[in-house]
Amino acid sequence: MKEFMNPLIANNPMALELAQSIKQLDPRSALRALKQHFDDGKILEKEMVTLCKPSLLDGVLFASIDPSAIDQTKILRHSTGTPGAATGKVARTIEEADKYIASGEAFILVLPETKPEFIRYIEEAAGVVTFQGGITSHAAIITRQKGKPAIIGCGDANLKSGEEITIDGAAGIIVRGKAPIKPPEPTNTDLSAILEIADGLSSEKTRHIVVKANADTPKDAEKARKLGAKGIGVVRTEHMFFAEDRLPHMQAMIMAADEADRRKHLDKLATMQKDDFKGILQAMDGLPVTIRLLDAPLHEFMPHDADDVAALADKLGVSDTAIEQRMEDLKESNPMLGLRGTRLLITHPEICEMQVRAILQAANELKEEGRNPQPQIMLPMVSLVGELEHIKKVIEKVGDDLGINRGDYKIGIMTEVPSTAWEAKEFAKHAEFFSFGTNDFTQTTYGMSRDDLTSYTALLLEKGIISSDPFQTIQEAAARGMEQGISEGKQANPNLDVSVCGEHGGDPASIHTCQKIGVDAVSVSPPRIPIARLVTAQAMLEHELEVGSWQVRQNARANSYSRADC
Amino acid sequence: MKEFMNPLIANNPMALELAQSIKQLDPRSALRALKQHFDDGKILEKEMVTLCKPSLLDGVLFASIDPSAIDQTKILRHSTGTPGAATGKVARTIEEADKYIASGEAFILVLPETKPEFIRYIEEAAGVVTFQGGITSHAAIITRQKGKPAIIGCGDANLKSGEEITIDGAAGIIVRGKAPIKPPEPTNTDLSAILEIADGLSSEKTRHIVVKANADTPKDAEKARKLGAKGIGVVRTEHMFFAEDRLPHMQAMIMAADEADRRKHLDKLATMQKDDFKGILQAMDGLPVTIRLLDAPLHEFMPHDADDVAALADKLGVSDTAIEQRMEDLKESNPMLGLRGTRLLITHPEICEMQVRAILQAANELKEEGRNPQPQIMLPMVSLVGELEHIKKVIEKVGDDLGINRGDYKIGIMTEVPSTAWEAKEFAKHAEFFSFGTNDFTQTTYGMSRDDLTSYTALLLEKGIISSDPFQTIQEAAARGMEQGISEGKQANPNLDVSVCGEHGGDPASIHTCQKIGVDAVSVSPPRIPIARLVTAQAMLEHELEVGSWQVRQNARANSYSRADC
Repeated sequence: MKEFMNPLIANNPMALELAQSIKQLDPRSALRALKQHFDDGKILEKEMVTLCKPSLLDGVLFASIDPSAIDQTKILRHSTGTPGAATGKVARTIEEADKYIASGEAFILVLPETKPEFIRYIEEAAGVVTFQGGITSHAAIITRQKGKPAIIGCGDANLKSGEEITIDGAAGIIVRGKAPIKPPEPTNTDLSAILEIADGLSSEKTRHIVVKANADTPKDAEKARKLGAKGIGVVRTEHMFFAEDRLPHMQAMIMAADEADRRKHLDKLATMQKDDFKGILQAMDGLPVTIRLLDAPLHEFMPHDADDVAALADKLGVSDTAIEQRMEDLKESNPMLGLRGTRLLITHPEICEMQVRAILQAANELKEEGRNPQPQIMLPMVSLVGELEHIKKVIEKVGDDLGINRGDYKIGIMTEVPSTAWEAKEFAKHAEFFSFGTNDFTQTTYGMSRDDLTSYTALLLEKGIISSDPFQTIQEAAARGMEQGISEGKQANPNLDVSVCGEHGGDPASIHTCQKIGVDAVSVSPPRIPIARLVTAQAMLEHELEVGSWQVRQNARANSYSRADC
Repeated sequence: MKEFMNPLIANNPMALELAQSIKQLDPRSALRALKQHFDDGKILEKEMVTLCKPSLLDGVLFASIDPSAIDQTKILRHSTGTPGAATGKVARTIEEADKYIASGEAFILVLPETKPEFIRYIEEAAGVVTFQGGITSHAAIITRQKGKPAIIGCGDANLKSGEEITIDGAAGIIVRGKAPIKPPEPTNTDLSAILEIADGLSSEKTRHIVVKANADTPKDAEKARKLGAKGIGVVRTEHMFFAEDRLPHMQAMIMAADEADRRKHLDKLATMQKDDFKGILQAMDGLPVTIRLLDAPLHEFMPHDADDVAALADKLGVSDTAIEQRMEDLKESNPMLGLRGTRLLITHPEICEMQVRAILQAANELKEEGRNPQPQIMLPMVSLVGELEHIKKVIEKVGDDLGINRGDYKIGIMTEVPSTAWEAKEFAKHAEFFSFGTNDFTQTTYGMSRDDLTSYTALLLEKGIISSDPFQTIQEAAARGMEQGISEGKQANPNLDVSVCGEHGGDPASIHTCQKIGVDAVSVSPPRIPIARLVTAQAMLEHELEVGSWQVRQNARANSYSRADC
């Protein structure tokens, strides 16, 4: 019903009619119809963007059943689902699933509902069908998390064990037998045209949130740019240390006896880091690239089993016990809240110095080649203003020693714990940007561990205690905290740039929240870029209306006040 | 210098003189002098309380060298320290310490400074002496945490390996040889008289924070009442489940196949719980007793090694594997943020119901015996308003089923995560009280794990990045968060009672913060009661002055405004 009420299309009968007619179409055809109506001059830019529901993109950006190839008589059910498509044999019990796992045959898990103990079967399945539940059920949450297509709450579809079916979660259909599946089509021309128009919308009354990407390699950065990203919101540098030729140096550094020894091993990583950064900065030439310094706790780089410990001991010429002892020292009872991020950089300034040198040298070389690199150095997990002040000096000293102009790079922080909101004024005096790590910000705001509470979250949704997953959609308390951090931060530093990185930035409801609380940019994984470009435009249009009507109300009140004064 | 400036004593030359003269006295004599001056009419109540520095209490409430028995010529050094006294042989190296640990002889660890790897030696030592560092050094933090007497930063005292010394941290002295040590004297008559006068002080301008105790047994509750506690701020009910006759029922409940089976095992605990609560409520008759429902995650109740697993398996008639599997299921990557507190109560309402029934039945029986029990049911680790609403209904249903008047008990929450501050208005509509668990509130506000960051905290103090330990003294961001929660909570519910439980409540600097941000009560471990009684009175006196001068300023401004209007 919402589109009838939506004032953005209410004045155009052709837009209202189109809103109804595209409901009958598959996603690709719907996008086609929208673009065609716009080209024919029947709807305005704003109307087209408003009518393009985010769910239409799911049908194009995920695998889907080819609508032209469906035999309508074979469609068994229409329901909601998790986007994606898959073919497989029906497994109605865990025992049947075990059989397919053993034989390697693709299977679709078909159950009344899913339970926490089924997670490993969901991971093995090609897709999932549940008879009960809705979009907030355990099955819906888990399949979305695991990227598995699913049909949710379709009632007992009378599917027989072992029969072959194909499901399409975005279309919400189950088809008997094998149906042709189209791969994701991120470059769909209608979609591209619509998104370009969406990008171009602007407002005098409010911001249009910029869409950036999370990318860790030059290749991902190029891909993100092609998908329309206007910069990189977070390069996670720890991923660079896991490559086969790098991990040994990292491990040797962790086992080093003293700082001098640690610096020796870090030097070997420095050139590789510089090349990584150069590639990414080049791919995003002219656009800001935010590079997060090492965040991961050191124990993540150590081996996981006895064989690997023995191999590492052999390589480094130390005893197995020495390695085990070091790993024991690094063990933490709550690693999420442990020695990571800026805490690690303060404890080991040599790591910070190596990374900053690599970033600034990479940028400097590009500049000398006539390019325009825009590096932004981001500090992960900062809790205390003093930590920022301290490490900022370390960074600036590296820049000074290299003779780099301070204006050639920015320094900012991940705002991912509540203290950064409550002391935003002080943090903003020393930071050029804030970037909300909404996942950790949610974990610390609510004291809820994402990894440990999946089943509990499903229970809360089932009982109606919450209406969306806090790790999908920004919730009330977190939004208030962020809003406080943003408004007090911008008060202290009007040039402060505020972004959101993390999966929340690609969630439509969360983008609307970001618009309201003053976020300037969202940074999302490349597959989420198209949806973020669409929804940021929609959020701006809606907010423009709200701000507008709020101004009208304000004016009305001002008028009534002046009347009272007379 | 502060006492010269302190307006609370500035008008009385005798008080100013006394401030100087008691500096030369040992703590007991200083308390004596204060009380004597008051009895002689030379100083006022307020002046006596102001002059009684918290450090004077350390000399009475901890073991100390008997001042009358000290041979002044044997005093080697004067310095700061961690309160307490001990005699032992000087161990100047880890090897020497190992020798004394093996022989079982008492030793004092004497080192230039302590490092994280020395913690287990500190635990074994009778006391610690360091040549370097101050009250924020690693040694000072660790010895306070471990309750070990220490002399900090005394310079190289030229102590010889193996020689016997006695140290007194509150007095800050090292004595050659064995000196007579007086045990703690919490009932010192001068101190008791001063504290009683402190308790009696009140102000029309501000609150006098009430001092309650943390106690888990009737015996501790009685002790706390004798020490002057005005109620119990938190009864930690999980401690009751670890007794030898109870743990097996708890473990059987955890291993139970279904809810019916779990209820069966819980029934066996119900009577014991009721008797626990009855004893505590009786010891605190007429005063509020806040009982926290089960907070600990279930895995804490399970066995720790293979032998215990086998014994439990045997007792329950299940396989070792079944127990190990259950323990594996309960394992969490960040247990601090995992399935605990109210999350556990929502997952297992039968635990909540059993505990609430035990509390209300205990109170009801006492009431029928003509007593006046004041039970307050507290929910631990609540993150979401919906969780509170949900579990409140479960509690009230138990009360209704037992025919208990709703006015006979209160329901409130631990406010220990930032979401409770950012949604304080909504929480306060459903809660009769807030109790800040400042330890967890600090952990989540800063995203800092107390257990994992002891060495990092010491590094921060050493580098001057912070000036006190966040787990000893409430820091800025946490204070702002608490203040926001308190002011918005009281706005929504003017009867809301706000307390602080946890060790911060016994820290003088934190008590002053509590006074400023609107806390009504602090709840501390029984040994901290005297210091909390003293400092809450001092904080009230200081705040009264501030509020007073603030009002003066306000009036001055109001006057200048009205002048401008003329």
